[in-house]
Amino acid sequence: MTITEAPTFVDELRAHSRRYHDQHPFHVRMNAGRLSRRQIQGWVANRYYYQENIPRKDAAILANCPDPAVRRRWIRRILDHDGEAEGQGGIEAWFRLGEAVGLTREEVRDERHVAPGVRFAVDAYVTFARTKPWVDAVASSLTELFAPDLMAERIAAFESHYPWIDQAGLAYFRARLFQAPRDAEHALEVVTEHCRSRESQDAALAALSFKCDVLWSMLDAIDRAYAD
Amino acid sequence: MTITEAPTFVDELRAHSRRYHDQHPFHVRMNAGRLSRRQIQGWVANRYYYQENIPRKDAAILANCPDPAVRRRWIRRILDHDGEAEGQGGIEAWFRLGEAVGLTREEVRDERHVAPGVRFAVDAYVTFARTKPWVDAVASSLTELFAPDLMAERIAAFESHYPWIDQAGLAYFRARLFQAPRDAEHALEVVTEHCRSRESQDAALAALSFKCDVLWSMLDAIDRAYAD
Repeated sequence: MTITEAPTFVDELRAHSRRYHDQHPFHVRMNAGRLSRRQIQGWVANRYYYQENIPRKDAAILANCPDPAVRRRWIRRILDHDGEAEGQGGIEAWFRLGEAVGLTREEVRDERHVAPGVRFAVDAYVTFARTKPWVDAVASSLTELFAPDLMAERIAAFESHYPWIDQAGLAYFRARLFQAPRDAEHALEVVTEHCRSRESQDAALAALSFKCDVLWSMLDAIDRAYAD
Repeated sequence: MTITEAPTFVDELRAHSRRYHDQHPFHVRMNAGRLSRRQIQGWVANRYYYQENIPRKDAAILANCPDPAVRRRWIRRILDHDGEAEGQGGIEAWFRLGEAVGLTREEVRDERHVAPGVRFAVDAYVTFARTKPWVDAVASSLTELFAPDLMAERIAAFESHYPWIDQAGLAYFRARLFQAPRDAEHALEVVTEHCRSRESQDAALAALSFKCDVLWSMLDAIDRAYAD
């Protein structure tokens, strides 16, 4: 006789990895080395729209969070992304990735390549953070639980399959290898501390589902925009 | 014959000093040493509600601001207020002011003394930052142009008229002596750079008026709640 224990709340959160965008057909093809230069460029230019909005999403969470101790740790995300000085930070690193794949800063910054579906998905994420209870918004960030594995695979895939991309351009992904676990650990602490009732846990799970949908939907739009 | 030049936009902003809360009857009595211990306590406990909401107001501005260079400087305000570690920052300094005037942290933190009018005014300020164009929200912070004079007078007044207050409790005001000019300078740069049309300048002036009303209205409510 086997004893089957009911999954814990954390198990249920982690189980969302099955809905993470690493399993999207476009992402599978990316890691298998099957994307063209044009498709890689399209992905980088579109994903920029996500990157540039992340600090605003995190600031919206700060604005809604009444706990200075949580804010004091959460603000690190904004500093990481915007950088503490000109020429530093995640957004800058993404511009360099853009250059490494052959995109000018200008064409990345002016969003000319951004597909409407990408814009809608990212805007929905920022609106979620602005308007939903702050703990749900924190829960929505928990896709970072799954990010380090994806980043490690992506770095390896880019290095072996896309030798035309200057490896210095991959610095963004390398930084996320240590930032994402630290961020996810904090978010998991907040969510498990604040979500004690079944109701609040369901809200957190729904928030994480929503976020998986955001990332997935972005790849749908990119896949369509740069179809072979 | 005298040549009278039209006031510049910056002159018009600075002219709002006539509506600053240092001229409110309650504030005039405070600086003249005419407030009772109970009135000073009431002011500190009520003003805490403003202090605790300032980082959320600033995070709302960050969330609405699309310019990483502006965000990179604006975030300093949140770090100053929340502190970079437990036991640091402006909110902590305000708790210490509370203790110096004879209030426990608990009775400050739980907001039991906060008058409804103070709550409404502060909430209106946070809502303004969340919902108005970010440049207008920046303009609303320009009461900081007038703050250093007020802080210097307040420190002198507290030292001479209220010797029962431990001077270590005044650290918040001392920090603002250098933080406020730095913050006001940045806000003024942003506002003068972004408000070139008469329309946008009028919006900035209206935002600053609104903020003067917030501060004034708080003192109205405190004055009524702690009438002699």
